Amino acid sequence: MPIRIIWARIMKPKILISNDDGFYAPGLLEMYKAVAGLGPATIVAPASEQSGAGHAVTVSTPLKIRKRKLDGGVEGYLVNGTPADCVKIAVSVICPNKPQLVVSGINLGPNVGISLVYSGTVSAAAEGTILGIPSLAVSLDAFENPCWDTAAHVARLIANRVLRKGLPAFTMLNVNVPNLPLKKLKGIAVARMGRSRFVEIFHRRTSPRGDDYYWLDGDLELLDDAGGTDIQFLKDGFVSVTPVTFDLTNHAAMDGIKKWDLRL
Amino acid sequence: MPIRIIWARIMKPKILISNDDGFYAPGLLEMYKAVAGLGPATIVAPASEQSGAGHAVTVSTPLKIRKRKLDGGVEGYLVNGTPADCVKIAVSVICPNKPQLVVSGINLGPNVGISLVYSGTVSAAAEGTILGIPSLAVSLDAFENPCWDTAAHVARLIANRVLRKGLPAFTMLNVNVPNLPLKKLKGIAVARMGRSRFVEIFHRRTSPRGDDYYWLDGDLELLDDAGGTDIQFLKDGFVSVTPVTFDLTNHAAMDGIKKWDLRL
Repeated sequence: MPIRIIWARIMKPKILISNDDGFYAPGLLEMYKAVAGLGPATIVAPASEQSGAGHAVTVSTPLKIRKRKLDGGVEGYLVNGTPADCVKIAVSVICPNKPQLVVSGINLGPNVGISLVYSGTVSAAAEGTILGIPSLAVSLDAFENPCWDTAAHVARLIANRVLRKGLPAFTMLNVNVPNLPLKKLKGIAVARMGRSRFVEIFHRRTSPRGDDYYWLDGDLELLDDAGGTDIQFLKDGFVSVTPVTFDLTNHAAMDGIKKWDLRL
Repeated sequence: MPIRIIWARIMKPKILISNDDGFYAPGLLEMYKAVAGLGPATIVAPASEQSGAGHAVTVSTPLKIRKRKLDGGVEGYLVNGTPADCVKIAVSVICPNKPQLVVSGINLGPNVGISLVYSGTVSAAAEGTILGIPSLAVSLDAFENPCWDTAAHVARLIANRVLRKGLPAFTMLNVNVPNLPLKKLKGIAVARMGRSRFVEIFHRRTSPRGDDYYWLDGDLELLDDAGGTDIQFLKDGFVSVTPVTFDLTNHAAMDGIKKWDLRL
């Protein structure tokens, strides 16, 4: 084999795949199929569904790693933790060499607006970013009848761009894909995170023993109607791509607070 | 009783107190003692320790609310969920009127730099902020021999300022207090979040059955040495006050990514 081909194979980027819907979620295999051609891919995903896990990490119970097979026979690692745990233990323990790319998803359901704060899908990519690895999260705007092929095409395209172009420090990409056939997509739009909140609905139930308990539910409420948000682009049939940072400082607010009387 | 006094009592701000160290953590009672004089305070805190819970919410199991007493006889509500769950269920179900202030803490241990992303203490205040309530998180830079009086003094002072001055939209305050007697504090500094990451250390153990398992541990590594960070101020004996936002968009990075070839 010519040295340049061997070299090209050696140089193929190592990719880490995780998610928050869990190891046996169909979207994880779809992500594997989407990006495996770009380089050798390792799957490390939560044993159970971790939707809403936010950026939780597991510090009070230990983590176990199990080798398992996805549908289709692809091998991966299953961890009894959160998405952030999976990425940490993958990079520290499972992957002999540091990955060059972390991809999270494909999530069933969108992660736009304030959902980014609660999303386990986003947090897996966030953890990759914090560890210094270019990372992206991909979510599909569907809870049923998912157009996996569309999302996989987009995931592969953006992953390829990230590998070529890199990302600014401490910045990941959050990608949301409309649930449409590829030909019906309007394009890819760079979008800001829409300002929004969840309007909580707690559903009360009573157990056979007479205990009340509550199920958390809620609807996303948009708090701004200026254009350019991930929420709006997704609704209009565009893929939204949002650069997400983990410097949480509101720099613009610092001067105002410095003027407060802060004598002890 | 004169009407103005009744009025003043009615007008006292309603305060919601939560934390991530759990309902029976000493810091929760210290926070209650610190802010109860400012207005009627309701305690709603997790049943178990939630350190590292990040902004997790509980969607796949239901939540229960229990009325319990802290040491000292103060009544509060205990919820089998995360800090974010506690604030959500407090505002939706427990508090008949919306609180005017959410305080979280007092946490045993600092929450500076990238810890903000993982911190349950910060996430309780974040949830208050997302619900439109001025909110602050207070952490003490100690794991043993805590100077609670110092932290309580600072918590009350900042809470008072927030009640008077308000906070910018979608912005909370993250407060960290050195573990020193009050007289030894150098002052209060408005600080940015220090760019940092955790260097993971996974400790491997083997169970009596021969299974390997891993404990997540790590050290905070500072990634910038420019001044003005929460990490630096805290180390130098200042209280650090950081305005924290939940618009995660890296606005500065958007133009660069718009120049990528993003044709489908």
